[in-house]
Amino acid sequence: MTTSADPAISAFRESDQDEHPLPSWNEGATRQSILNFVRGITRTGGPQFVAPEERIAVFDNDGTLWSENPFYFQLAFVLDRVKALAPQHPEWKDNPLYSAVLRDDLKAVAAAGERGILELVTTTHAGMTTEEFSKIVEDWITDARHPKFNCPYTEVVFQPMLELLGYLRANGFKTFIVSGGGVEFMRVWAERTYGIPPEQVIGSSIVTKFEIRAGIPVLTRLPQLNFVDDSVGKPVAINMHIGRRPIAAFGNSDGDLQMLQWTTAGSGSRFALLVHHTDPIREYAYEATSMGKLEVALTEAQARGWTVVDMKTDWNRIFAFESEK
Amino acid sequence: MTTSADPAISAFRESDQDEHPLPSWNEGATRQSILNFVRGITRTGGPQFVAPEERIAVFDNDGTLWSENPFYFQLAFVLDRVKALAPQHPEWKDNPLYSAVLRDDLKAVAAAGERGILELVTTTHAGMTTEEFSKIVEDWITDARHPKFNCPYTEVVFQPMLELLGYLRANGFKTFIVSGGGVEFMRVWAERTYGIPPEQVIGSSIVTKFEIRAGIPVLTRLPQLNFVDDSVGKPVAINMHIGRRPIAAFGNSDGDLQMLQWTTAGSGSRFALLVHHTDPIREYAYEATSMGKLEVALTEAQARGWTVVDMKTDWNRIFAFESEK
Repeated sequence: MTTSADPAISAFRESDQDEHPLPSWNEGATRQSILNFVRGITRTGGPQFVAPEERIAVFDNDGTLWSENPFYFQLAFVLDRVKALAPQHPEWKDNPLYSAVLRDDLKAVAAAGERGILELVTTTHAGMTTEEFSKIVEDWITDARHPKFNCPYTEVVFQPMLELLGYLRANGFKTFIVSGGGVEFMRVWAERTYGIPPEQVIGSSIVTKFEIRAGIPVLTRLPQLNFVDDSVGKPVAINMHIGRRPIAAFGNSDGDLQMLQWTTAGSGSRFALLVHHTDPIREYAYEATSMGKLEVALTEAQARGWTVVDMKTDWNRIFAFESEK
Repeated sequence: MTTSADPAISAFRESDQDEHPLPSWNEGATRQSILNFVRGITRTGGPQFVAPEERIAVFDNDGTLWSENPFYFQLAFVLDRVKALAPQHPEWKDNPLYSAVLRDDLKAVAAAGERGILELVTTTHAGMTTEEFSKIVEDWITDARHPKFNCPYTEVVFQPMLELLGYLRANGFKTFIVSGGGVEFMRVWAERTYGIPPEQVIGSSIVTKFEIRAGIPVLTRLPQLNFVDDSVGKPVAINMHIGRRPIAAFGNSDGDLQMLQWTTAGSGSRFALLVHHTDPIREYAYEATSMGKLEVALTEAQARGWTVVDMKTDWNRIFAFESEK
């Protein structure tokens, strides 16, 4: 295949895959399980055929479409924003949580737990209009670099999954993100990175409020959690936003378990896949970490025959920026 | 033009409109304002051109796509459901609200106000799984008949608006419903009636909960309001579900005002339209009623130059079941 420096472009070259779909996936049972499923549900008149309007596929984001190490990329955004805002907040120096961020003491940040993270999120995500927030994310995602790979976060996306998104769309699927990440954080870059438009991005959210400011209607972001799109929240969000049950679901952690359960409990042909991070050289290897923990879902995958990707052996290329083999 | 007994079918005959779009709309300023807008934003290289992915159009439902008289059709569903459930609730005979419903005393029901309506809604909409609820709606929408027109409610839809939905889609628009009605009530029939898939239907909702029942994952509907998609809620819901600002918005009442304000406040070419119910013979004529009140929005439409449909003079056909002129 031809290489492209821009992973976003390769995501859209769906026609490249006509003759040999999923080129970054090694031949074998994992790749074959995807091909078998798609060929089954697209065969007109066949026993597994699914009408195009029912071809809904849902993807977790962190750890499934892009990396989630050394920590969630949105957390990197939060920490960078705290630093950017610090000059306007001299009082933060005397606050244990904020001062921990300012001196890069991630252990102390983590020790503040969910409550601490939530405070940092609302501080950095609320208090502006939706348009102002989008601009802040846009600027950050353009400038920020991943600490290990030294490239924009939007290039730390899995080439095999981009090919999978394209392959599914070429076969009539609508592809959705269903992520614990912030919906308005992801929408800024999801369309150009994954080819997934804003209306197909579902995520966690804070409350917004409509108001007229100096004659101009705006939506203001309030420091109040609206919805957490993780775990049991994922099927709820799928039902709320999509309104039909997906026929395929892709995740990588225990937070995706309920989404995979909900998807596979429907009638007819169903597909569920977990990305198992097993490559410490090219990416990361982990299971029992605080972020992207994969334990219960892995056991259930084995019991139910869901597809599990072994990144190290199933993917011949993980990132577009790797050199060709 | 040829007639079709099935309004759903005529909605999809988008190719019929190639030569003369919007046939049920009389020639004149109203129809022309739509054509001018669409021709402007689709002219490649023109000053008003809008890329296809940004062509988002949002439609209120009650009073905009179908009638809302003698009262919201979903309220007819609520009242019918109370009657259907009454044999299991002998205690309702002694309850002023429920007994009012059972003896068709709509004045007494209305007197119970928003709190009374909300109680009836949660009684009839909660306590079952999402799949069970869809089946209940499906059965009702098949059997119920509109009291004036004596046909299924899904035929009491405005033929000119079906043509408009088709015309916009033929010009690259994604069409969404943004309604105060219940999202899971509308999704059951919106796709076949309007050609709008479930994932493009946005509405009010109650809370749902994911749980495993006897090994089967289900979503249970709880008697708790989640979101009211009316008035200031409409721009909030548009932002939450669609994530980009529409370029065209269609409504008929004061509850649509903020949606039209939000839509038209964006840059570039924008379009806003209000359906004004002015035909007491073929449909209904009203402004200052409790349902579908049109006062503030009408004044703002006049001030801002939004298009206002005079149903009596602008539409040569209101319903598909009318005889040809």
